[in-house]
Amino acid sequence: MKKITVLKIGGNVIDNPEALKTFLREFAAVEGPKILVHGGGKLATRLAERLELKVQMVDGRRITDKGMLDVVTMVYAGLINKQIVAGLQAVGCNALGLSGADGNIVTARRRASEPIDFGFVGDIERVNADLLGNMLEDGLVPVFSAIMHDGHGTLLNCNADSVATSVALGATALAPVDLVFCFEKAGVLRDPEDEMSVIPEITAENYPPLKADGTISKGMIPKVENALKAVSQGVRSVTIRSSARLNDGIGTVIR
Amino acid sequence: MKKITVLKIGGNVIDNPEALKTFLREFAAVEGPKILVHGGGKLATRLAERLELKVQMVDGRRITDKGMLDVVTMVYAGLINKQIVAGLQAVGCNALGLSGADGNIVTARRRASEPIDFGFVGDIERVNADLLGNMLEDGLVPVFSAIMHDGHGTLLNCNADSVATSVALGATALAPVDLVFCFEKAGVLRDPEDEMSVIPEITAENYPPLKADGTISKGMIPKVENALKAVSQGVRSVTIRSSARLNDGIGTVIR
Repeated sequence: MKKITVLKIGGNVIDNPEALKTFLREFAAVEGPKILVHGGGKLATRLAERLELKVQMVDGRRITDKGMLDVVTMVYAGLINKQIVAGLQAVGCNALGLSGADGNIVTARRRASEPIDFGFVGDIERVNADLLGNMLEDGLVPVFSAIMHDGHGTLLNCNADSVATSVALGATALAPVDLVFCFEKAGVLRDPEDEMSVIPEITAENYPPLKADGTISKGMIPKVENALKAVSQGVRSVTIRSSARLNDGIGTVIR
Repeated sequence: MKKITVLKIGGNVIDNPEALKTFLREFAAVEGPKILVHGGGKLATRLAERLELKVQMVDGRRITDKGMLDVVTMVYAGLINKQIVAGLQAVGCNALGLSGADGNIVTARRRASEPIDFGFVGDIERVNADLLGNMLEDGLVPVFSAIMHDGHGTLLNCNADSVATSVALGATALAPVDLVFCFEKAGVLRDPEDEMSVIPEITAENYPPLKADGTISKGMIPKVENALKAVSQGVRSVTIRSSARLNDGIGTVIR
């Protein structure tokens, strides 16, 4: 394989049927071996509310108790994953939906219960690059939800950005990997109000001044720092960009 | 491959966590390439009730409207499928969960809306034996829910017995196939009250008198006739047996 593209979409695409349809068509047109990782969106929260599950929050973060684990497994690994896979098949993209348990392709470790017990939440442990390689060689397009397993029968809810990064790092054993995070903006913006102010490139060299002068701030800091880390660990490039017009070349490239 | 075993379990196993655990251990011990097909159980109905979806019945059969399709996709292709896959991984069986949309492995055709419109219900059209063969050659154990797709972006709820039969027939392109239907009894019984009265073998020759004298009646008639049909179409054997003690050799073999 010449290269592998790993692409992550989040709730802003998943919650909008028209945006999702457009995205799936664009994704189908991405050339070469590729992998999709999807987040969850608001459906799981809405379902939990309709089921009157008690939402437990600690430090502003939701605890995944057994009831919530069942909900996210149903919504992420079931409904959303299969709708995306069927939608991709309809546009000629041979998608195959996966949780981490399927083929034991990604294992996670349940997060320590100290200082805060987040419940059935995991951090990625290992990606089975051989199986991933077999699938890509067979022309399949793996589509990951963020539901992983611990190898001992327990499903774990993971962070979709982390899943994308881990899968991308795992895939570097097979070919050069370009990782793309789609979000609601056209890229990392100099001016958050101006979609035309996309910073074209961020590197380990130009990042510190961008952070120091406040150009990159708040929620973009972890995104960019995780991207720089992925690059330092072997991913060829990380692009932060909009999910619309996926193939127009606009976005911030971190390398 | 010397032979392939296709095994189907229904709600009576899925709804009982202890029975399911025992079954998964027994299934993991089945030798050679194998495929599991699972039905749904009561969870989808309970979830639909909790969501206060209106259950529409026609001629005693439930209509799968869009809301119900989402529920069965969540429960069958999501929760139950991933719990089974994670459970099998925990006992060393390299399971991979599938809907029909995944890898376009099974397509279905939406049932005609005349005389009764059952909604998003499909009948199996085509099984991708090549992909199934690749997976089995790679040592994977495909685990099918009964959620299929039409190839044009629509998921369809199918009958799990029909999925098992179609997958078994498709797999005959790869190797001799033995199909096993697990249910709550030890096999087809001469006396429904006596678990020891299992009829060991039914063939096209001894079936007509068994039906004529009422030994095989009611719900067993379609089961046995579908099994005879599968055998006439190329499945080597169909066994009807209990899901407990899967490897004890007891059951009714149709060939």
